[in-house]
Amino acid sequence: MEKVNISEKLAQFTDYWNPRVVGELNEQHVKLVKLKGDFIWHHHENADELFLVIKGKITIHLRDRLVELEEGEFFIVPRGVEHKTAAENEAHIMLFEPKYTINTGNVQDKRTKDRLEQI
Amino acid sequence: MEKVNISEKLAQFTDYWNPRVVGELNEQHVKLVKLKGDFIWHHHENADELFLVIKGKITIHLRDRLVELEEGEFFIVPRGVEHKTAAENEAHIMLFEPKYTINTGNVQDKRTKDRLEQI
Repeated sequence: MEKVNISEKLAQFTDYWNPRVVGELNEQHVKLVKLKGDFIWHHHENADELFLVIKGKITIHLRDRLVELEEGEFFIVPRGVEHKTAAENEAHIMLFEPKYTINTGNVQDKRTKDRLEQI
Repeated sequence: MEKVNISEKLAQFTDYWNPRVVGELNEQHVKLVKLKGDFIWHHHENADELFLVIKGKITIHLRDRLVELEEGEFFIVPRGVEHKTAAENEAHIMLFEPKYTINTGNVQDKRTKDRLEQI
């Protein structure tokens, strides 16, 4: 039960596509992740996923459109909906999703993180 | 399934202690609320509650200590824990909590909002 300073947490790591858990409530995790480049297409069978941009800009690719997000904007990808995140330049985001949601969803990939670090 | 710009949503209302729902996922609500002054002591029997400061500063009073939060900081009040939020000057916060969580928890008050507006 300590407060979390988002900038301080983000300063603790530099790697991309490796979400850190910074909070837990109601069977949900709050995560921070740094992005650069393109992720892979995937979906989550049983998890809606909220992406809130803390720094920079990201694009969430959906099969029928692109969602461009800037600092202070969020988007919720509903369960079952295929998506791919991308960031031309380094971006920092906060995720809110059920505990144990795997970053690559239904796909196994070299960037799959099935054991998350809590910071 | 539209993106949410937090500042634009906050610009749509001016009243205090009246949370607006701006997102829904995994049986949780994302809410925005403006605070000024002191709220009432209460707890939530079955809801952990996350407070993220978007603008200004708030104090979360717990029975044994104070948690001071600035912009970019969050705190999770676990279910069952008595708390009272306060803000000397106007502050804007984002809440994450289970759907249908009532702002005054176990207490009925003139500021109880049991029907929330979605914006």
